Amino acid sequence: MHDPNAIADAYLATWNAADQTRRHDLLRTAWAEDADYTDPMMKGCGHDGIATMIAGARDRFPGHSFHLHGTPDGHGDVVRFSWTLIAPDASPVVQGTDIVRLDDDGRIASVTGFLDAA
Amino acid sequence: MHDPNAIADAYLATWNAADQTRRHDLLRTAWAEDADYTDPMMKGCGHDGIATMIAGARDRFPGHSFHLHGTPDGHGDVVRFSWTLIAPDASPVVQGTDIVRLDDDGRIASVTGFLDAA
Repeated sequence: MHDPNAIADAYLATWNAADQTRRHDLLRTAWAEDADYTDPMMKGCGHDGIATMIAGARDRFPGHSFHLHGTPDGHGDVVRFSWTLIAPDASPVVQGTDIVRLDDDGRIASVTGFLDAA
Repeated sequence: MHDPNAIADAYLATWNAADQTRRHDLLRTAWAEDADYTDPMMKGCGHDGIATMIAGARDRFPGHSFHLHGTPDGHGDVVRFSWTLIAPDASPVVQGTDIVRLDDDGRIASVTGFLDAA
């Protein structure tokens, strides 16, 4: 059983990394090479594809950051957690829930994202 | 894009089918032959495996039924919905959320379930 909190932390850190090198380091450490990501608005595949996707989202929401909402849970190779996108003025902009599937090495192999409130 | 409400209805009808023949009919209609199901407490694979799993759960909660909670959503081949298990005296027993992946024919191919409150 993986630690859902640690997975959520690594995941949100990747989204919150303003520096491109730091973001790639986090992808290499915590994400499988062929990881794929899908939510209602975005898709990305592989470290480069997901880095580009995150950079695009960060450009759309400058100064915003993702914060854990509630308590991550999971079972087997699956982890679930919710997050809030917070604006620079500290107001919540979007909430969502992500379902993460891990590979045998405990790296993020697949993410399916949902929006909970906007 | 599939109809998340129709998927949730077919899914919950399968769990609520008290009659074994009816349950198998619903599995054949709405679920892929090699469908797999995983939640924190149960696993099942294929029509027979999932039918047996549901029968076991129904034996543990006689007279209970599953009811949709909130509004199903989804994107691409994924549907998400929440449910409440209601006791014969109408009291809620458990709430959960299921993530369903559909095959190319729109049948339930994979279910990952989570418990929200018990």
